[in-house]
Amino acid sequence: MTRTPNLRIPGPTPVPPDILEAVAHPMVNHRGREFAALISRVAGRLKDFFATSNDVLILSTSGTGGLESAVVNTLSPGDKVLSVSIGAFGERFAAIADAYGAEVIPLQYEWGQAARPEEVREALEAHPDVKAVLLTHNETSTGVTNPLEEIARVVRGRGEPTHLLLVDAVSSLGAIPFETDGWGLDVVVTGSPKGWMVPPGLAFVSMSERAWRAYEQAKMPRFYFDLGRHRDTLAKGQTPWTPTMSIFFGLDIALERMAEEGMERIFSRHASIARMVRSGVKEMGLELLCEDERFASDTVTAIKCPEGVEVSALRTLLEDEHNVILAGGQGKLQGKIFRIGHLGLVEEEDIRETLESLEQALPKLGFRLPAVR
Amino acid sequence: MTRTPNLRIPGPTPVPPDILEAVAHPMVNHRGREFAALISRVAGRLKDFFATSNDVLILSTSGTGGLESAVVNTLSPGDKVLSVSIGAFGERFAAIADAYGAEVIPLQYEWGQAARPEEVREALEAHPDVKAVLLTHNETSTGVTNPLEEIARVVRGRGEPTHLLLVDAVSSLGAIPFETDGWGLDVVVTGSPKGWMVPPGLAFVSMSERAWRAYEQAKMPRFYFDLGRHRDTLAKGQTPWTPTMSIFFGLDIALERMAEEGMERIFSRHASIARMVRSGVKEMGLELLCEDERFASDTVTAIKCPEGVEVSALRTLLEDEHNVILAGGQGKLQGKIFRIGHLGLVEEEDIRETLESLEQALPKLGFRLPAVR
Repeated sequence: MTRTPNLRIPGPTPVPPDILEAVAHPMVNHRGREFAALISRVAGRLKDFFATSNDVLILSTSGTGGLESAVVNTLSPGDKVLSVSIGAFGERFAAIADAYGAEVIPLQYEWGQAARPEEVREALEAHPDVKAVLLTHNETSTGVTNPLEEIARVVRGRGEPTHLLLVDAVSSLGAIPFETDGWGLDVVVTGSPKGWMVPPGLAFVSMSERAWRAYEQAKMPRFYFDLGRHRDTLAKGQTPWTPTMSIFFGLDIALERMAEEGMERIFSRHASIARMVRSGVKEMGLELLCEDERFASDTVTAIKCPEGVEVSALRTLLEDEHNVILAGGQGKLQGKIFRIGHLGLVEEEDIRETLESLEQALPKLGFRLPAVR
Repeated sequence: MTRTPNLRIPGPTPVPPDILEAVAHPMVNHRGREFAALISRVAGRLKDFFATSNDVLILSTSGTGGLESAVVNTLSPGDKVLSVSIGAFGERFAAIADAYGAEVIPLQYEWGQAARPEEVREALEAHPDVKAVLLTHNETSTGVTNPLEEIARVVRGRGEPTHLLLVDAVSSLGAIPFETDGWGLDVVVTGSPKGWMVPPGLAFVSMSERAWRAYEQAKMPRFYFDLGRHRDTLAKGQTPWTPTMSIFFGLDIALERMAEEGMERIFSRHASIARMVRSGVKEMGLELLCEDERFASDTVTAIKCPEGVEVSALRTLLEDEHNVILAGGQGKLQGKIFRIGHLGLVEEEDIRETLESLEQALPKLGFRLPAVR
């Protein structure tokens, strides 16, 4: 390794040096007093960011494992689920439910669009026996943020709610405004390498009281991802299986720092940096994949690769000559878009460097920048 | 934290400073060239320790998740499995199979004993339709090592094998002799915080050709732990989901160091240190839980707590006054035994300090040491 790259993929994000130092903490007894205090402390701080009075459970897995836990702890094979999907991670959430035998009713949007609350309502009216709605808050593959609060209101409906709402908040929570209890979300999942400035390895999951009641009835098989075991051991400051301790040590420092910065300032930093990204790329004559800016993500921006420019060539040039790492497209967007991550540890300077590098790289690949900017 | 404790639990083990430094490596693109090279390098080195020509897949999970992957990738609900159980981790392996709908036939031994190959043969003769045998190589909860090679020979039988052998090698592989292909083992699972001198967070899993054929038929649901997805992405130096990168960085250095020490020297170091532990505690007038020393583990020793001494008081005294951390008993052995871990990063000096601390602590709790030692 030479100098640290400007890692601008939508997770893992760069990790500050003092948090990396904490990740290198020597091993202690994972069932001892010191580590129990740490687990209780981070679980408590996570509750603030989730804005929930329920436990936040910490699983040693990636975000995908966290999504699997949401499905298998609340559903039974044969249960109908409405999959509201706007991109690759929406498809993954549905694929998990399908793998465990749920009957998946797809409500799919063109990649780059947000889901429309009224269409979710219509789908639920057509399928009143849907047990759960699977929804991605911020779709990492397209840079689109769904109107979660509005959709949650539709899913809850009037009177006693009849559908559970399972939310993939992997690339949103900790970076943009989020209200687990206030919006009535039943299961919320996020992961360490996104808004939290720590390396990958942990997923965080909250369950509403209704979700816990569903858990008692849910028949999908589960063991490692059994959230009841996580809840029971969390009460003692433990995890049911040996936890990925290094990331817990980092998270402890990261959450302390995030509490110091304050949620409001974290959210406004993400919002203003995202505006800077969007206006910067548009000034270069590039187009956003998300055409309706009301739904443009404040954590990741997907940009249509201009005609005649190869995404892979652009990414290689940026990495080799500018030490700037961007992400490509996923699934059917591979080769069509590139993505800039701007969540967790991100400052204006990182984005300025990214935009300047793009501005230098694109003409070398035959793209003509607008004359007046 | 003051000084680093003498962490003598059977995992997580202490981690050498240069490996901890590697764990603190800055984040890079988990799908980039540098990390692909690292994944390929560590997967290749793990094959040497597994002594297999098959891929070793690296899962971001604890050892328990690794065991779950062994079950769900080879079996279907309703399949009969023979659970050969000699302790808490044997019970856990069976509980996983049960959770996913296997029909579990238990062959249980008193905790502290090893399984007897002829009884495994009898059980298989009584249940010839057993699809798989679940076996713990080294039972961490009792300090007993099963005669794996002999049991594997029985399970394979004569002619074309009809049973799969799934092996929990979590606290053995990397520390004591092991032959995945030579002994004909179908699925082998181990975990990072045991023999490998790295923090928890990763499980390593190998599958024989027969296991892969079973995979094609296996109907238990799986997604995060789907080993086919791991195999397919490993070919590109990737993992299907975001990996716990920090532990990969540490593992890279750890495997390099283990290759330098050499397998034979690693194994003989563990064997001689285990003898030192056993003779040391016996000289103090203490008794091993494993009465037949042919099966005494070279990675963890379980010691009966002498009458009148409370395990929790002993462990607290050792921690507070000597900075030595021992493990207690698990499950039905809680309060009855304590355990000394001696695997991965362990030298004679660590054990000398442990034994001396025990020798000072026990009399303070009313235990009378033998007069002549």
